[in-house]
Amino acid sequence: MKGLVRMKEISRLADGRGRVVIERVSPQIDCGRFPIKRVVGEAVVVEADVFADGHDQVACQVLYLREGEKEWQSSPMTPEGNDRWRGAFSVAEAGRYEYTVEGWIDRFQTWRDALAKRIAAGQDVHVDLLVGAELIEGAAGRAKGEEADLLRKSARRVREEKDIQSAISLALGEELFTAIRRYPERQFATRYEKPLAVLVDREKARFSAWYEVFPRSCASEAGRHGTFRDCEAWLPYVASMGFDVVYLPPIHPIGRAFRKGKNNSVVAEPNDIGSPWAIGSKEGGHTSFHPELGTLEDFRHFVSEAAEHGLEVALDIAFQCTPDHPYVKQHPEWFRKRPDGTIQYAENPPKKYQDIYPLDFESEDWQALWNELKGVFQFWIDQGVRIFRVDNPHTKTFAFWEWVIGEIKKEHGDVLFLAEAFTRPHVMYRLAKLGFSQSYTYFTWRNTKQELTDYFIELTQTDVREYFRPNLWPNTPDILPEYLQVGGRSAFMIRLILAATLGASYGIYGPAFELCENTPAQAGSEEYLNSEKYELKHRDLHSAWSLSEIISRINRIRKENAALHSNHNLRFHTTDNPMLICYSRTTDDLSNVIVVIVNLDAFHRQTGWIDLDLSALGLESGHDFQVHDLLGEGRYLWQGSRNYVELTPESLAAHIFRVRRWIRTERDFDYYL
Amino acid sequence: MKGLVRMKEISRLADGRGRVVIERVSPQIDCGRFPIKRVVGEAVVVEADVFADGHDQVACQVLYLREGEKEWQSSPMTPEGNDRWRGAFSVAEAGRYEYTVEGWIDRFQTWRDALAKRIAAGQDVHVDLLVGAELIEGAAGRAKGEEADLLRKSARRVREEKDIQSAISLALGEELFTAIRRYPERQFATRYEKPLAVLVDREKARFSAWYEVFPRSCASEAGRHGTFRDCEAWLPYVASMGFDVVYLPPIHPIGRAFRKGKNNSVVAEPNDIGSPWAIGSKEGGHTSFHPELGTLEDFRHFVSEAAEHGLEVALDIAFQCTPDHPYVKQHPEWFRKRPDGTIQYAENPPKKYQDIYPLDFESEDWQALWNELKGVFQFWIDQGVRIFRVDNPHTKTFAFWEWVIGEIKKEHGDVLFLAEAFTRPHVMYRLAKLGFSQSYTYFTWRNTKQELTDYFIELTQTDVREYFRPNLWPNTPDILPEYLQVGGRSAFMIRLILAATLGASYGIYGPAFELCENTPAQAGSEEYLNSEKYELKHRDLHSAWSLSEIISRINRIRKENAALHSNHNLRFHTTDNPMLICYSRTTDDLSNVIVVIVNLDAFHRQTGWIDLDLSALGLESGHDFQVHDLLGEGRYLWQGSRNYVELTPESLAAHIFRVRRWIRTERDFDYYL
Repeated sequence: MKGLVRMKEISRLADGRGRVVIERVSPQIDCGRFPIKRVVGEAVVVEADVFADGHDQVACQVLYLREGEKEWQSSPMTPEGNDRWRGAFSVAEAGRYEYTVEGWIDRFQTWRDALAKRIAAGQDVHVDLLVGAELIEGAAGRAKGEEADLLRKSARRVREEKDIQSAISLALGEELFTAIRRYPERQFATRYEKPLAVLVDREKARFSAWYEVFPRSCASEAGRHGTFRDCEAWLPYVASMGFDVVYLPPIHPIGRAFRKGKNNSVVAEPNDIGSPWAIGSKEGGHTSFHPELGTLEDFRHFVSEAAEHGLEVALDIAFQCTPDHPYVKQHPEWFRKRPDGTIQYAENPPKKYQDIYPLDFESEDWQALWNELKGVFQFWIDQGVRIFRVDNPHTKTFAFWEWVIGEIKKEHGDVLFLAEAFTRPHVMYRLAKLGFSQSYTYFTWRNTKQELTDYFIELTQTDVREYFRPNLWPNTPDILPEYLQVGGRSAFMIRLILAATLGASYGIYGPAFELCENTPAQAGSEEYLNSEKYELKHRDLHSAWSLSEIISRINRIRKENAALHSNHNLRFHTTDNPMLICYSRTTDDLSNVIVVIVNLDAFHRQTGWIDLDLSALGLESGHDFQVHDLLGEGRYLWQGSRNYVELTPESLAAHIFRVRRWIRTERDFDYYL
Repeated sequence: MKGLVRMKEISRLADGRGRVVIERVSPQIDCGRFPIKRVVGEAVVVEADVFADGHDQVACQVLYLREGEKEWQSSPMTPEGNDRWRGAFSVAEAGRYEYTVEGWIDRFQTWRDALAKRIAAGQDVHVDLLVGAELIEGAAGRAKGEEADLLRKSARRVREEKDIQSAISLALGEELFTAIRRYPERQFATRYEKPLAVLVDREKARFSAWYEVFPRSCASEAGRHGTFRDCEAWLPYVASMGFDVVYLPPIHPIGRAFRKGKNNSVVAEPNDIGSPWAIGSKEGGHTSFHPELGTLEDFRHFVSEAAEHGLEVALDIAFQCTPDHPYVKQHPEWFRKRPDGTIQYAENPPKKYQDIYPLDFESEDWQALWNELKGVFQFWIDQGVRIFRVDNPHTKTFAFWEWVIGEIKKEHGDVLFLAEAFTRPHVMYRLAKLGFSQSYTYFTWRNTKQELTDYFIELTQTDVREYFRPNLWPNTPDILPEYLQVGGRSAFMIRLILAATLGASYGIYGPAFELCENTPAQAGSEEYLNSEKYELKHRDLHSAWSLSEIISRINRIRKENAALHSNHNLRFHTTDNPMLICYSRTTDDLSNVIVVIVNLDAFHRQTGWIDLDLSALGLESGHDFQVHDLLGEGRYLWQGSRNYVELTPESLAAHIFRVRRWIRTERDFDYYL
């Protein structure tokens, strides 16, 4: 009957004799459809259920491979109980890695453990030693050179040694065990069915502080249209506050047709300057400059000046066109026509946006459209830009984003994309899965302790953390949240501290933020009154009212504390006052432990008791420890998990404690030096 | 630049214009690696996250296909909120079905909703009507015959009607909407990436009551070895108790070498009969009969007599061999050799089982071995057996089970397999995924309210329910749990009621169970003293002590109440006494509602308050309702969710209530007739 087994029936296994099963490999997004994300130097901790039939012991390892390499590298896995195994590897370079899990029957360990039990039970083990000698010889056959010789010698001794106690000692010895582990018999090893992928970015994908500024409002005199050169003069200011990304709204020619006037008026006055997101005029489109801002040369100068100040320039990519955009004439096929021959403008019925034509991703000519839009990114990459903030990506097709981000990153692995989508959760998460490096979040509207806790647990303690990197914005040119409208300067401080310490990446729309501008267009609106989107602004950056000093301090704290550079060790701690939120961030090795306590009440002093989860902080319950407020500079001795705090919003609405452990050798007293 | 888009980059989509995304399709086991399970007539409720970019509305449907058919059938999906959609289809026949989800942009509904909003805002809609007319014409192009004509006529009216109100009424009318829905534009529809599978069994896979009996103990006189003919005489007894599966331990020749004596003694007396699981002697192996039981003809007669009594015969398949088994000589390559030339016997060091040789699934000749073992199933199928209880499947390779069950079911879709694995959770679940129709469970050791609740929530309210069908055994020939050892007859009653009402399938090892045999081999052992595994038994089935009457009643209740035929509507309700457990089972349509309350204390009367989740039972909180105890026959009027119970273990340890709603028309008073 030999040969009757239909091989295709067992095609999932190299051989019907593969006995090890590998299930539930994590991390894994949508069955491996999307890569997980990491930044250079991070670990990928891989877990899997690995087991076999019967009582034999199994062994397994993580296999990983940088794209383009041919040889898998391996990293051992160790058991976590209940057939769960864990291993890890580091991603040293930007780009794409694959990983999978391989498992096999560990014959030698199975035999060795059984031998120990038999000896303990006083059984005769002569035949067992012969079995072991065969296993050792097998390993010798897989080993090379000196090691093979040593193993062969061991096999002979286990088999032939007259003194059985000596043979047993050798067989059970750690030395032999370690040597044999290097040459497991993997003939019938099983691999997880598909390799999984990890996309590795440079560190800024995870840890960044953004400052959004309209260059046209950077002129030194009121009323004049600012230029790239004017904006350069602001770079020292932005850098001094500790930001590392300066993000510019669109810098392209602004359309004339249906131009919006001040306060989003549908009729513009002749001298109204229009919204930078109304892209395209006879001067050009997405690869041209708004003439009043300056030239390509000015822009390149701006980018390199920014770099001098440790700032990267992020550009806004808004794929939409005014009726004046060159595409409208050159590529009418990229726009949807209405039956009356006009082009379909943007709308969200009954609202109409006649100043904007959406691109039609269902165009017959979609391939050319995709390539053109890719070319837009490429143009700015050629000008030295490596970060793009993408406007409303959720109104363009998902397939396009997956393609274009993949294409760009293949050639420019250092390019980062921030998704500006404030839409339904599945859509936001999908965009992140498709490749966006960072994403705007609902943080902007999460104000209460419960709201913040629930949302940040979702972002940092579920699978979401594997692919969605939050960038927290307390305000944007479109969004002046009610919390800021009502709570005044204290509210700005509170939201700033939350944004900067709840997430590794955050940003503000400045100088509206640091100057605490908070007048809405009208009651119930989140638009700014006299919004900068439609008119020039001239501001006094040196106002005593400005939060710039506290911003500087917070960004310095962020830089100096590695615990604040990643998200996944965020943990919330209990407080007995709903206005007090407490959370910690730590490095994996607990060498840096930050505890943040924020008074969410912008109006009143709040007091209460904090109940810390000490084990999460690497603290023992019996010991006291010092907390050093990096924000207010106070130091406190805390005892155990329960500690009292009081926070006054007018002075300082929060503590950002660095936890210092008492370790009673003088070497550790560096903070007294 | 046209054509530059590398098509392989977007190969997941038929076309770059496919805008709909389908994620998280459920049910789905291990990314579709394994089929879910259903029985004939059941529904498969499919859910998915379905959404698109932008604001357009989407529509989607479940597609399904019986294996061998070519045309997908479809079933509509409806939105559940948060981009989640749900649909369902029924599986009418045994076999394998595939299912997937398809989604597309619903242009007409998008347009129709926008039109309504525009009209409400008092906007001019002339152009919009033209757009709508194009969409209606599109549907006309996809329709045929009269319907196409009607649609074309509607398009013309929407476009040309002078009375705009009349055109609007037509455009927004339900009639047109319904007609167009039948012809959606699915040109750029998206399908979920891989089709998923469902394995459909006959109903007994889900709902069954098993009775295990040793035929050799069925002789009418003490001391004589029973035969198939003797066992036939028991069939009316087994049937009268309401069982539908009679399960026989192995009926093959029992080995002589290293035969075990009474109470598992390593030395057998000459007249010791040995364990039926020690398979193989010079009289034959897995397709032969133990001579003292009878012949092939006797066996076939037994199978057909059983059928006459509404009983199916389940055979034990234990793939292991005594040293006397014919395979040992005919196929020495199927056994592992030790270096001293002997065959490796079974062991769990330091324990040795010299009477059993395991088959070596790593044999070079594994294909022939697999085929031979498949042949064993085939042999018994040819004798009319359709149910197999597989002994220790977890000590044979997983790949073999997936292959052999798949092969058998391809030709005999009505064959069922019960996995007798009492091992680690992942291993038990893997066997179920591979194809076993039913599985033994940890129920045998789950005694407390918390243990039972946790375990049955895992089995019935998680993904496990999609592939793992529990079969609950309060005892087996190998397992006399301590609860039964200590609690006496009341304990047997309690465990019986739990097994029969917590799961749709259960079984007992009789007559040890109904006669409440509960003496362990020794303190701390779960083996029976003088176990039937090693000696003949002769029992008085008509003992007053027997639980046969209550078993009959419980099996009748099970048959008469569809709520007890499936597992997934199991729900636990709160009680204020840890010794009282309360749970309900219902049909999907709530036409049959059963509430079970069991006193878990075998020694004392327990009283307490039950707090029912009324909505789960289809009851309104303001109404009173009748509960009818199908076990004790009492009727009670209950008011709202909180109700008092008292249960005395010596008389009746449980209520099995059928909930009868008060509906005030005389037609519903059938229980008074």
